[in-house]
Amino acid sequence: MIVEKVNLSEKFSQFNKLWSPKVVAELNGQQVKLAKLKGEFIWHSHEQEDELFLVVTGSLTIKLRDEEDVVLNEGEFFVVPRGVEHLPVAEDEVNVLLFEPASTVNTGEIESERTVRDLERL
Amino acid sequence: MIVEKVNLSEKFSQFNKLWSPKVVAELNGQQVKLAKLKGEFIWHSHEQEDELFLVVTGSLTIKLRDEEDVVLNEGEFFVVPRGVEHLPVAEDEVNVLLFEPASTVNTGEIESERTVRDLERL
Repeated sequence: MIVEKVNLSEKFSQFNKLWSPKVVAELNGQQVKLAKLKGEFIWHSHEQEDELFLVVTGSLTIKLRDEEDVVLNEGEFFVVPRGVEHLPVAEDEVNVLLFEPASTVNTGEIESERTVRDLERL
Repeated sequence: MIVEKVNLSEKFSQFNKLWSPKVVAELNGQQVKLAKLKGEFIWHSHEQEDELFLVVTGSLTIKLRDEEDVVLNEGEFFVVPRGVEHLPVAEDEVNVLLFEPASTVNTGEIESERTVRDLERL
């Protein structure tokens, strides 16, 4: 098979680590990543990359400066435009699909202990 | 709000036309499209574009030349690499999310009565 299909719930069952996106597909210079989030991340932005968050299970809040919070439930997505500061927050664990350029680093322009590079591929 | 969140089931409820993708988001030169498919499409390929099919509800079969059929159920996706001929088939109506470059035409290199340009935005 040239490429394998991806079953989202199967992939999510393969890891538990929070805030550590896994790459599950690449296309057109973009990557599909899966992440488990719980708690509060850090404020950051991506200078060159728009970032899509799709909630697969659970609920995710994306806080923005000077805008209302965006609350995403299952089957909802939001695109954070490049340059826009955002803070993902999840009261309970949430499974999220990210779609963004392969160059995107999770903490954007911020270098932090939360920064993850060389993402694992599932 | 800079951009609105997208609720997939709400967007799918806004149209009925088959084989007529609607654009629901743009990011990084790519588009997120929603489509309702039923029956058989036409064999085609996209010379420059990889194409992601994610099944939101229902079941979709993607036929490939000299490869086994790819059967996608809810929560499963497949990336058809550029240049690979494929034929989407759905016995019953299926709701699909597509992720692909904004330049992608539904029938790829084939010009046909099934070709749809100037996609509606929802």
